[in-house]
Amino acid sequence: MAMAVNYPEHITLDEAWKIIFDTFAEYPAKFKKNIEISEAVGHILTEDVTAARNVPHYAASAVDGYALKASDTAGASPATPVRIAKNDCRWMNTGAALPEWADAVLMVEDSADADGNVLVYKSLPPSSNVRPLGEDVMAGQIIAREGEMVTPPLVSLFLCAGIEKVPVYAKPKTVFIPTGDEIVSQKEWLAGRIQKSGTAAESNSLFIAATLKENGFDVDVMPILPDVPEILENYIKECTEKYDVVLVGAGSAKGKRDHTIEIFDKLGEVLFRGVRIKPGRPAMAAKIGGKPVICLPGFPMSTAVALWALVCPLLKFFTGVKGDGRSLALGAAGADKCMQTELLVQHSSGAGIEEWLRMKTALIDGKIYSWPLTSGASVLWALAEADGIAVLPREALECERGTKVNVWLRRKPDLPRRALFQGSDDPALQLLITPIRRRGADLACRTVGSMGGLAALSRGECHVAAAHLLDENTESYNDTFIERFSVGAEWLRFLVFYRTQGIIVQRGNPRGITTFSDLCKKDIVFSNRQPGAGTRVLFDCLLKKEGVPSSEIKGYSQICTTHMEAANRVSSGLADATLGIKSAADALGLDFIPITEEPYELVIPKKYTDHPGIAALLDALNDKEWRGKVEKMGGYRWA
Amino acid sequence: MAMAVNYPEHITLDEAWKIIFDTFAEYPAKFKKNIEISEAVGHILTEDVTAARNVPHYAASAVDGYALKASDTAGASPATPVRIAKNDCRWMNTGAALPEWADAVLMVEDSADADGNVLVYKSLPPSSNVRPLGEDVMAGQIIAREGEMVTPPLVSLFLCAGIEKVPVYAKPKTVFIPTGDEIVSQKEWLAGRIQKSGTAAESNSLFIAATLKENGFDVDVMPILPDVPEILENYIKECTEKYDVVLVGAGSAKGKRDHTIEIFDKLGEVLFRGVRIKPGRPAMAAKIGGKPVICLPGFPMSTAVALWALVCPLLKFFTGVKGDGRSLALGAAGADKCMQTELLVQHSSGAGIEEWLRMKTALIDGKIYSWPLTSGASVLWALAEADGIAVLPREALECERGTKVNVWLRRKPDLPRRALFQGSDDPALQLLITPIRRRGADLACRTVGSMGGLAALSRGECHVAAAHLLDENTESYNDTFIERFSVGAEWLRFLVFYRTQGIIVQRGNPRGITTFSDLCKKDIVFSNRQPGAGTRVLFDCLLKKEGVPSSEIKGYSQICTTHMEAANRVSSGLADATLGIKSAADALGLDFIPITEEPYELVIPKKYTDHPGIAALLDALNDKEWRGKVEKMGGYRWA
Repeated sequence: MAMAVNYPEHITLDEAWKIIFDTFAEYPAKFKKNIEISEAVGHILTEDVTAARNVPHYAASAVDGYALKASDTAGASPATPVRIAKNDCRWMNTGAALPEWADAVLMVEDSADADGNVLVYKSLPPSSNVRPLGEDVMAGQIIAREGEMVTPPLVSLFLCAGIEKVPVYAKPKTVFIPTGDEIVSQKEWLAGRIQKSGTAAESNSLFIAATLKENGFDVDVMPILPDVPEILENYIKECTEKYDVVLVGAGSAKGKRDHTIEIFDKLGEVLFRGVRIKPGRPAMAAKIGGKPVICLPGFPMSTAVALWALVCPLLKFFTGVKGDGRSLALGAAGADKCMQTELLVQHSSGAGIEEWLRMKTALIDGKIYSWPLTSGASVLWALAEADGIAVLPREALECERGTKVNVWLRRKPDLPRRALFQGSDDPALQLLITPIRRRGADLACRTVGSMGGLAALSRGECHVAAAHLLDENTESYNDTFIERFSVGAEWLRFLVFYRTQGIIVQRGNPRGITTFSDLCKKDIVFSNRQPGAGTRVLFDCLLKKEGVPSSEIKGYSQICTTHMEAANRVSSGLADATLGIKSAADALGLDFIPITEEPYELVIPKKYTDHPGIAALLDALNDKEWRGKVEKMGGYRWA
Repeated sequence: MAMAVNYPEHITLDEAWKIIFDTFAEYPAKFKKNIEISEAVGHILTEDVTAARNVPHYAASAVDGYALKASDTAGASPATPVRIAKNDCRWMNTGAALPEWADAVLMVEDSADADGNVLVYKSLPPSSNVRPLGEDVMAGQIIAREGEMVTPPLVSLFLCAGIEKVPVYAKPKTVFIPTGDEIVSQKEWLAGRIQKSGTAAESNSLFIAATLKENGFDVDVMPILPDVPEILENYIKECTEKYDVVLVGAGSAKGKRDHTIEIFDKLGEVLFRGVRIKPGRPAMAAKIGGKPVICLPGFPMSTAVALWALVCPLLKFFTGVKGDGRSLALGAAGADKCMQTELLVQHSSGAGIEEWLRMKTALIDGKIYSWPLTSGASVLWALAEADGIAVLPREALECERGTKVNVWLRRKPDLPRRALFQGSDDPALQLLITPIRRRGADLACRTVGSMGGLAALSRGECHVAAAHLLDENTESYNDTFIERFSVGAEWLRFLVFYRTQGIIVQRGNPRGITTFSDLCKKDIVFSNRQPGAGTRVLFDCLLKKEGVPSSEIKGYSQICTTHMEAANRVSSGLADATLGIKSAADALGLDFIPITEEPYELVIPKKYTDHPGIAALLDALNDKEWRGKVEKMGGYRWA
C-alpha cells in the first residue's frame, strides 16, 4: 500500500528547478565575500569594481627620444632647426617617466646630435608623444561590473589599478557521500583482478569531481558508507553542518532509495522525490539544516544527468551565474552549442519522460544526421563516445526517422571528414578507426548487420557498408544482395579479408559440441544474432541444410548485435554456444569449432570514393600496424 | 649600425609556428607517460585504451523480481500459472547478481505469492530481464582512442573497466621569469598607496597563470629578476635545466630586449626575434639546452597576444592537441566561435602587420556591427571589455566602415538585448550600465561627442544618443541639431538632468583662474575636447563671445575624448585647465569654477523604444540607487 507523502513526487525538471531556486532564493547572498584578486579568477563579481589608481600612474614617453619643453621647439623645422642644450632635454626610452619640467617628447628621428647639443627639426605642441597617465584606466573608473566573471585580463588589471580584494560569490563547500554495501572503493576495485558478482566500483566520484571541476567547483569525496540507516543519518547530518551543499550517492536498488528518503524526511524537509527525466529518474532533493541535500541515483548515466540538471544549476545559481535551469544544465554538460540534425533511425521515447540521449552525428550528402547511442542508464561508454546530447521533450513518443532533433554538442565533430559506416560487425574494423584518425579523418560505426548496411546504403544513410551475405541458392556471397540494393547506382566492392566462422563454445567445450548438428540438440542453449546479420543468414542456411526447424533451437529468439556480445553470453554461461568469428572466441578465451570461411567486403558507392573519410579508410586498409594486429587476432586470411 | 644576425627577424606568425613546430618536432614524444586515471582528466591519450574487464562484470537482474530457470516457466500464462517452490527461485532487486543456476528473471508483476511458493503467470525464454555482463563495455573492447582527451565519463569508465593508468601526454613543466628594474612585485605594489613614476606592477604573471590554467597548464612564477645580464643568464640557464618550457617576461624598453637576445644567443640558438603581430611584435624565441625559451614583451596586451599565439600553441603541440598554429592560438584565447560582423567605424591597420583587435559588438536593425576598442599594447581594459578578437591580416590597411570582419568571440553577448549608445560622455551614464544589466539588458557605450552621437543615430549606427549642444544663434540646446539630423524620422527626447559645466583647474588653482577670460591668457595651457563634443561646442561659443581666436589658445589642438581624460591632463600637470563637468573635477580632487548649466538629453528614435536595452535604460533612469550615486557625484540637477 502506498504511504501518503508530504512532498511532490515524479515532477518535471522545470518543477524541480522552481522548487530548488525558490527554496534557496536567499542562499546566494550567503556566499558574498571579498577575496584576494589572485584567487578571484572564475568567480562572479557581486558589485561594480572601480579603479583605485590611474593605470599607468604617470605620464610616460610613447617613443624613444628627448623629453623637453614644447615651447622650446617653437619654429623648428628641417630647414630651421632649433638648438637645445643637453641640460634642457633628457633621453627617454619608450615607457620611461616624463620628467616634471617636460611636457613633450621629441622622436629621435626628428633630432640630431650637434656638439653636445640636440638639434630639433620639428615644432611640437604640448603633450606630443606623451602617453598620458590613466591611458588604460583612470582612478574612479568602473573597470568591471556586478555579474561579470573575473577573467585573466581582469585579475591583471585589478592589480595594476591597485585593487587587493574584490567582492565575489565564493564557491560553496560541496561534499559527495557514496553509499552502498555493494560499492567497492577505487583502490580495492583496481587491486582485485576479479570482483565478486553484484559489486560495482565507486566510480561516480571520479565523474562528479571532474565535472564539477570543469564547471569551476570543488568537491570533497567521503569514504563509502554502508547501508546502515543510523550511520547514514548521522553522517548526512554532520555533513550538512560542515558543508554548504551535500550530495548523496545512493545505491540503485529501490530498497536503498527508500532508506535515503526516510533519513531525509527525518532530518529535514524532502523537496521532491523522482524527476521525470531519463536517465536520472530516481533523483531526490531535501533541505536539511537549511542546506540543500541532493540524492544522486547510482547508475553512472543517472548520476551524470542528475549532476548536470540539478546539482550544477544549483551551484551556479548560488554563485551568481545567470541563466535559467535548462541553460545552466546544458552548460554544465559542456553542451551549449546547438546543431540541427535529422534522426537517422526511429527512436521510441517513454511517455511523460524528458529523455537525455547521447547522440552521434554524421554528414551525408549535405544533410546532418544524428542517432542515439544506447540509452541505458548504466552505459557510460555511450557518453564518452557521443558528440552531444539531445533532449527529447516529455511529449515526444515515437520519433520517426527524419525527425528534426537539436543536438547540444559536447565536442566539435569534423563532419566533412567523418564517414559513416553501417553494416556487419567485425572487431578488426574497430581497430581500423585509429589508423583512419591518424590520416586526419574519422569513421563512425553503426553495427546493423550485413543486410542492414546494404539497405542503409541504398537509402543514402551511410558512406560505406560491409557485408558477408551467403545466397543459399547460388552459394555465392554478396552478389545477389548488392544487385538487389544498388539499383541505378554504381557501388564499388573492396574485399578486405576472409574470416573463419564457426561455433563458439565454453572453454573446454563442456557440452561436447563438434559439428553443426550437435548445436541442434534439444538441451543446447544457443545465442543468436539479429535478422539481417550475415552470421544469422549463415546460421539459417546451415539450419535449412540440416533440416532443423528454428523453433527447435533453444535461444533462437534471443538476439545479440555483435560477435563479442554473443560470445560474451557463452562466456558468462547464459548460452552454451553461438555462431561467430574466431577472433571473438579468442578474445574471451572460448573454444572454437571452425565451420566455414567467408569473404568480408566493404561496399562503397562510387560517388563517395573521394570523401576524405572513405579515402582514409581505403588507405588504412594497407596500414602495416593494423594488418599486424589483425593477423595476431586470428581467424583472418588476407584476400 | 645594424649588426649581422644569424636568426630570422620580424617574421610572420605562420613562419613563427613553422619554426617552433619544426624545431621541437621530436619534443611531444618526451611527454608520453602512463599516469593514474584520477590525474588523467584533460590529458590526451597517446594510445588506444582497451577495457581490461567486462562492465558490468556479472549478469544482473534488470528488474525487481524472481531469478529462476526459464525452463521451469514453460507453459505459464495468466490462465495457467505455474507453481515454483521458493527454493527454486530467489528474490532479486534491480542490479543484483543473477545466481549461477538461474538464467532468467520473472518480473514481480508477473508473479504472485501462494502458500510460500511463487505463482508464475508468464513463460520466459532464457535471458529474459537479465542485464548481460559487458552491457556497457566488454573486456578487450577499445573504449578510448589515441588522440582523444580524457573526459569525466572516460575517467569513470576507465575505473569500471579495471584500468589503473592510461598512456597520455604529460603536461610540460613551465616557468615564467619576470624581469626588469622598474617592475614592482604584487605585494609591494598593493602595499604602497603611491608608486614611483616609471614603475609598473608585475601583473603579467597573474594573466599568464590564469590563461594557462584555463588552457589546462600550470606555471611556476619566479621572483622578479633585476636587469643584470649575469643574473639573467645564470637564472635562465638554470631554469632550462629544471623546466620543459621557459618564459621570460622582458621589460618593454628596447635596451632591455637587446639584453635578453644577447643572453639567448650566448646560451643557445635564437629561433626568431620579432613577429609581425600587433600587439606582441617584440616577441622572441630560442632553443637553450634543447628547451624552448620564449621572451614575452612587457606590455600587458603584448604579453597576452604572444602567450595565446606562441606559447599556448607550443604547449598544446607538446601535449598532443590537434590543430594548426592559428586554431590553437584562437582556442587559447578562448575565441573559437566565429561571428560575422561589419565594421561600425573605419580602422587603419599597419602595413605588413597582423593586428589582433579587441572588438565590441552590437545588433542594429538586423545587422551585426563590431568596432575595435583602443588598440594600445598597454591597454588591458579593452580586452576585459571586449566580446572577442578580430584578426586583421597583414594585407589589411584602411578598413572602411562596413568592411566584413570575423569576430572570434571570447564570450556570448546577448545582442538582441544590448542597446548601443553613441554620444556625449558623462560619468553618470557609466554608472547606469549596472542598473540596466540588473534589468536583464545591456548597454554598450561609444563616447563620440554630442554631434557624433546624433550623426551616428541618423546613419542608423546606434539605438540612443546623448547631446548637450548649444546653438550660439538661438542660445537653445539641441533643438537645431536634432532637427538637422533626424530628417524624416521621429526622435524622442529624454531630458536626464542639468549639468554644471565649468573650468577645471589644478588643486588650489595655482594659476589663479577665476573667469573664462583668464583662460585665454597666453601662458595658460588648455586641454581641449574633440570637435563635435558638446563641451567643445560650448568652448568655441564662449571663445567667440570673448572675441579670442582659437589660435591664441595654447593646447587648443590637443584633444581628449572624455571629461575624465581632459581632467586627468590637468591633474598630471600636462595642462593648466580644461572645460568640463563638475563631477570630473570632483573625482580627481581638482578645483572647479562654474560657468554655465546645460541640459543633458537622451535622443531615441521612436522605433527603438521597445528594444529591450532601451526599455531597460529608460526604466533605469528612475533607479533610486543610481540617482543617489549621481547626486553624490555633484554638479547634477534633476530635470
